[in-house]
Amino acid sequence: MAWNETKLTLTGRICTDVRVWNANDEERMVAAFTVVTNERKFDRETNSWVRGRELFMRVKCFRRLAAAVAGTFVKGDPVVATGKLYTNKWEKEGQPRSDLEMEATSMGPDLTFCKIVLLRDERSGMPIEPVAA
Amino acid sequence: MAWNETKLTLTGRICTDVRVWNANDEERMVAAFTVVTNERKFDRETNSWVRGRELFMRVKCFRRLAAAVAGTFVKGDPVVATGKLYTNKWEKEGQPRSDLEMEATSMGPDLTFCKIVLLRDERSGMPIEPVAA
Amino acid sequence: MAWNETKLTLTGRICTDVRVWNANDEERMVAAFTVVTNERKFDRETNSWVRGRELFMRVKCFRRLAAAVAGTFVKGDPVVATGKLYTNKWEKEGQPRSDLEMEATSMGPDLTFCKIVLLRDERSGMPIEPVAA
Amino acid sequence: MAWNETKLTLTGRICTDVRVWNANDEERMVAAFTVVTNERKFDRETNSWVRGRELFMRVKCFRRLAAAVAGTFVKGDPVVATGKLYTNKWEKEGQPRSDLEMEATSMGPDLTFCKIVLLRDERSGMPIEPVAA
Repeated sequence: MAWNETKLTLTGRICTDVRVWNANDEERMVAAFTVVTNERKFDRETNSWVRGRELFMRVKCFRRLAAAVAGTFVKGDPVVATGKLYTNKWEKEGQPRSDLEMEATSMGPDLTFCKIVLLRDERSGMPIEPVAA
Repeated sequence: MAWNETKLTLTGRICTDVRVWNANDEERMVAAFTVVTNERKFDRETNSWVRGRELFMRVKCFRRLAAAVAGTFVKGDPVVATGKLYTNKWEKEGQPRSDLEMEATSMGPDLTFCKIVLLRDERSGMPIEPVAA
Repeated sequence: MAWNETKLTLTGRICTDVRVWNANDEERMVAAFTVVTNERKFDRETNSWVRGRELFMRVKCFRRLAAAVAGTFVKGDPVVATGKLYTNKWEKEGQPRSDLEMEATSMGPDLTFCKIVLLRDERSGMPIEPVAA
Repeated sequence: MAWNETKLTLTGRICTDVRVWNANDEERMVAAFTVVTNERKFDRETNSWVRGRELFMRVKCFRRLAAAVAGTFVKGDPVVATGKLYTNKWEKEGQPRSDLEMEATSMGPDLTFCKIVLLRDERSGMPIEPVAA
């Protein structure tokens, strides 16, 4: 519930471990990891595709999405994730620090690059919903 | 490989059957379906969340993503999809027609709302890649 | 103030007149027009850029942005516009109709393709803010 | 001309000076500045809008867009900018450094918050195009 959020969508691969912890004060689960996206460029001189710029983005997600991500993905897995980009501020040894971070609000494996089984209720055929985390 | 594409990301549910066919001339598989996204608005008068506007978007995907989508999803499933938005033009009974359509280039289930098993190679632990379609 | 909105950004040219009216019940100004975006693709066979797909998107904006747009732009002008995509529903001769529409929440001329003078307060040098419409 | 770029759109205010220089090897102009975006959140307890998270994003643009931006904007001006997000890498005193940066490909003043005059050819009424930089 906000106005003027900056939305971002990433398609790439998880390139770190998925760390999980509990934000105790809020009793909610947090998962954090980095996604790398590789741009591909077409090189007219060689008439072939070459590597372009990279984007390394630190991603956090919360609650039941955090639990699902932590239980599903490991380093190297291909994902599509969408959410909000913001500047994260903190202190280290008394010095102000900041970096950019994305909070993923929806995320899943990218089916262009992997196979999955979607778990369904046997009787209704509907997807089984994760419980709150 | 294009410039000035219009990118779009959808998070919502598939609200039609997933139709699949072969674009024979190009020998590639096509999958088509519609995704509905429901906006949620906060109503200050009642201090509660209410339904906002809806977006119904026709989505196509191609080749191995088409095969994966057709083999995985049915009507009602929650997805996150990203791709390109464009105007699709055709003729019907000699009259020009057009509508808007998204070509999904990356797509998966939204793990906020469903559970999956990601299939892995037993020895390497790496995701099993789909084959070309 | 909403959740799960679908954001969209267009860069292209206004390809219709800018129509303006007053939504009387709400006493707010509305401006409506269409933006066309032309994709450019690189053709490996001819080693040159060719026209790709087009996107024609109907855009609405409200209040002081509507007034500014109506007072600034005409058909053919290059713009960058960002906002929310949704399905617009109405009735015509008793039949339900719908199409896709974008509500622009921020918009301006694309300075890659045109020149402007930004009006400033003589003393402070700050931009002159439009008044409510 | 690239595939799998990460697109980003910012709406906010320029919060630094606009620096300009010439990338000599390529004989093209570069402009660099930072845009701050302020999220607004609705606080249910006080029933009012409050400040949410901030995003500070370093932006670069090139050639004639760089010239237009440098000649038009100063610190404090409201803009809408869209482009590509990537990780910028360099060395400082022999140490590898990196940060995130956006290359703006289209950009203009946000007409919600400022007034402009769009310069037109007297005879055709068409916008006057900037020359290459």
